[in-house]
Amino acid sequence: MLFRQLFDRESSTYTYLIADPTTKEALLVDPVLEQIERDRQLLGELGLTLKYCLETHIHADHITGTGKLREITGCLGIVPEKAQIVCADRFLKDQEPLKLGEIIIEAIATPGHTDTHFAYLVNKSHLLTGDALFIRGCGRTDFQSGDAGTLYDSVTQRLFTLPDNTLVYPGHDYRGYTVSTIGEEKQWNSRFVGRDKTSFITFMNNLNLPNPKKMMEAVPANKNCGNISTIKLDIKS
Amino acid sequence: MLFRQLFDRESSTYTYLIADPTTKEALLVDPVLEQIERDRQLLGELGLTLKYCLETHIHADHITGTGKLREITGCLGIVPEKAQIVCADRFLKDQEPLKLGEIIIEAIATPGHTDTHFAYLVNKSHLLTGDALFIRGCGRTDFQSGDAGTLYDSVTQRLFTLPDNTLVYPGHDYRGYTVSTIGEEKQWNSRFVGRDKTSFITFMNNLNLPNPKKMMEAVPANKNCGNISTIKLDIKS
Repeated sequence: MLFRQLFDRESSTYTYLIADPTTKEALLVDPVLEQIERDRQLLGELGLTLKYCLETHIHADHITGTGKLREITGCLGIVPEKAQIVCADRFLKDQEPLKLGEIIIEAIATPGHTDTHFAYLVNKSHLLTGDALFIRGCGRTDFQSGDAGTLYDSVTQRLFTLPDNTLVYPGHDYRGYTVSTIGEEKQWNSRFVGRDKTSFITFMNNLNLPNPKKMMEAVPANKNCGNISTIKLDIKS
Repeated sequence: MLFRQLFDRESSTYTYLIADPTTKEALLVDPVLEQIERDRQLLGELGLTLKYCLETHIHADHITGTGKLREITGCLGIVPEKAQIVCADRFLKDQEPLKLGEIIIEAIATPGHTDTHFAYLVNKSHLLTGDALFIRGCGRTDFQSGDAGTLYDSVTQRLFTLPDNTLVYPGHDYRGYTVSTIGEEKQWNSRFVGRDKTSFITFMNNLNLPNPKKMMEAVPANKNCGNISTIKLDIKS
């Protein structure tokens, strides 16, 4: 498997490029609109064909690159089933496997940051946790149908139950970490360690974080597969 | 081998944590002063003992964390032989292997960005290229005894001659790349592809880059193993 972690500095987002080196089929998880030229160039240099863009959830902090990449490459945009993104090409159910050449990507419903969030387990070794679980942290739960208790259950029941050596690749990082493991997060993630569900809910509900800068722009754009021009047309019409 | 890439956003520096999971011995390559608390915490959480801090070169863009880490942990500071850092604990020669448990780190003299720069090949698979080779780029050669022709020779004769599947882990990245391979860089690094030595020298000598913001502070501090307080004392005395 070819596996590349890519970083968008402005939103601190990690995009993941996954490809089967034999079939040359590729997918991007959580591409960022501002980085699509970088991503396209890399795909071209590696001789890969972009088959899918896969979202962990509807992002509030950046606009997805899926719409533009779909327009340019003809790839399919895939989202979690319940995300109700009418413009998506395909919807994944919880535990549904997505095949990319010989690579198996398993969807894991992990609501809480948003109510339709998925993590993706790639070849049973690389876990893309999106905004459910960060390295020594987790996504916020105070908007977009977020719910702290639901996130606690998702992380402790669906992610912390995976083997300890599962690699954790988050959707964001703000401190310079690139990878962790489930074993490490179970032992050292202070959001969860030593906190029961009630204490976690109280903690999360008192974070008092400012809204993401791009939220008002990003959420409607991402509900439209990242297609901003159509949104503008909609507003005009 | 435990291998972790860590990022310092301010200077866009990658620090590498390498450890033998059996002996629990660890080393950091190019630690950044501002990140030593993060790095120490990670070492502690992973149950590792910091044995060495290893520099690829004398940095001009950030202050090394080696001095502080040595003070706190008792680790040894290691630098390329010709760097003339009198406060260093150990000096590596070109092609000299450094052992960390069962891990072998081989020093590769790659002058050009500075005249004493080393790359490090870890277990013959992971190449830490420092500022000699970046992903689709390379370090500048216009100060600190830098020399474009020397860098061209270092990269083309010492790094591009390694196997194509050797993983390239650079000392900096400014565009969100985390890893590449020697095969990829030989094919797609526009600083080198299609340029002979003369053309490379002309190109590098006309970059007209501004000096790194921290240069005046970082270079003297790094010549003193990152120990700023001693520098201040020296100035006063």
